[in-house]
Amino acid sequence: MTVPRTTQGFASGHVRFVGAGPGDPELLTLAALRALETAEVILHDRLISTDILALAGPAAQLTETGKTGFGQAMKQDDINARIVAAAQSGARVVRLKSGDATVFGRLDEEIEACDAAGISWSIVPGITAASAAVAAIGQSLTRRGRNSAVRLITGHDVEGYADHDWAVLARPGEVAAIYMGLRAARFLQGRLIMHGADRATPVTLVANASRPDQQVLATTLDRLTDDLARAELSGPVLTLFGLAPRTAEILLPALDKERA
Amino acid sequence: MTVPRTTQGFASGHVRFVGAGPGDPELLTLAALRALETAEVILHDRLISTDILALAGPAAQLTETGKTGFGQAMKQDDINARIVAAAQSGARVVRLKSGDATVFGRLDEEIEACDAAGISWSIVPGITAASAAVAAIGQSLTRRGRNSAVRLITGHDVEGYADHDWAVLARPGEVAAIYMGLRAARFLQGRLIMHGADRATPVTLVANASRPDQQVLATTLDRLTDDLARAELSGPVLTLFGLAPRTAEILLPALDKERA
Ligand SMILES: C[S@@+](CC[C@H](N)C(=O)[O-])C[C@H]1O[C@@H](n2cnc3c(N)ncnc32)[C@H](O)[C@@H]1O
Ligand SMILES: C[S@@+](CC[C@H](N)C(=O)[O-])C[C@H]1O[C@@H](n2cnc3c(N)ncnc32)[C@H](O)[C@@H]1O
Repeated sequence: MTVPRTTQGFASGHVRFVGAGPGDPELLTLAALRALETAEVILHDRLISTDILALAGPAAQLTETGKTGFGQAMKQDDINARIVAAAQSGARVVRLKSGDATVFGRLDEEIEACDAAGISWSIVPGITAASAAVAAIGQSLTRRGRNSAVRLITGHDVEGYADHDWAVLARPGEVAAIYMGLRAARFLQGRLIMHGADRATPVTLVANASRPDQQVLATTLDRLTDDLARAELSGPVLTLFGLAPRTAEILLPALDKERA
Repeated sequence: MTVPRTTQGFASGHVRFVGAGPGDPELLTLAALRALETAEVILHDRLISTDILALAGPAAQLTETGKTGFGQAMKQDDINARIVAAAQSGARVVRLKSGDATVFGRLDEEIEACDAAGISWSIVPGITAASAAVAAIGQSLTRRGRNSAVRLITGHDVEGYADHDWAVLARPGEVAAIYMGLRAARFLQGRLIMHGADRATPVTLVANASRPDQQVLATTLDRLTDDLARAELSGPVLTLFGLAPRTAEILLPALDKERA
């Protein structure tokens, strides 16, 4: 099959894998908005905000894949089967994923299910959480003279906490955007310090980037787990290793007073 | 200063650093479109397509920073001075950069000039070239069981060809999105092979991702420079190390016949 450009028509029986961005509806692309407006079936992740779902066309049938009627998450196989069945019924299907569908989005399983069933599909890129988080703190993911590479990494993978090239990350100036890093915070902290990272390396956590309830926690590698324990972040969190917010504004003035 | 959320109002004398995405106007965000429509002064990179510039409001004053009247690129200091002067004159200023402004965008210099002049600013995230390129070949930047990290790297930095953690990149399953990698292709090939990368590792180059003249060159680490020499890619190119297009479609059927 061929992969159409994003601007091409949205035919019956076609599946669009659409990145919904980090949550702010203004961070949808025009292509994503059009796909939502014209889709007949929308299968969406739990993370997608209601503001974005409200942009779906009036006739669209919406299903959350994060939960079934009994409050449990659908299995990946069930999601694949739903996508295929909807396309086979002749519907224009949007599979809506948070951020960019190609970044920690489990996209391949779903594409392979479409390919196996002979269903045409395309990918509409989205703003990934790292871009939104770094914009929120006024920093760049890369900077001349500081880092000529940035890593997007996950805190955990199929086997548990994910291992990475810690020795490289521990070097001065390195920057990583860590997805799903909250539960792995102690593990990440331990590995990086063990591999020689400066304990004063800035670490900034952005919860709900781009959403009205956005929170920023600016800390250091050394204080990461202590500050986290007191911060009570909720919602999806992107951890920026190696970056401090450009602004002086810090989420936890109370903590700073304690420290002073 | 505080960093406003993307959805907040666009005041006089404020500078918005806006990511224009990879070129397809449909891949603008709604926030970027609104900023273009309401800006009074727009300073844009050379890479920005005319389709996108056409979305600027009728009263907007557009200046390309890639060229002066004499066909030469503006110096960074001149760009900074222009941004500051426009904001100080009370205009709503959009600084439009290709892709995402925080990825290899030289954003920091411009933000620091604004801060020094006491000018308020914000960042509107955009779709970075890596997201567009990988969507064009139907792949993911990360995949469970294959890579739990993806690197965005540059082919060259201030000092020339950029050095990276080649030994790590050379491992099976690693994926990197290489910006500005075309001229560095021979260097990258040499370094990766020297560090033990499998010569058969897929490498895919996407020129003009998301634009009508998009081209895909699917090759391997081994054949990279030979295939490039014959391919005549033009325009900006994103090099995807470790990924082959999911489709069987290949840009160079003539070459494949030669090889057969
Ligand atoms: C399964 S991954 C999906 C990533 C998504 N495909 C992307 O490109 O952003 C979920 C993780 O993304 C991050 N994330 C997604 N949306 C976010 C947001 N609005 N703010 C902060 N982090 C976010 C969090 O790290 C969360 O644990
Ligand atoms: C100075 S960097 C700017 C990157 C931009 N800020 C981004 O996030 O995509 C320019 C490089 O980006 C890549 N690039 C930008 N637009 C592209 C496109 N439409 N197709 C392929 N590569 C692109 C190329 O590698 C190019 O050399």
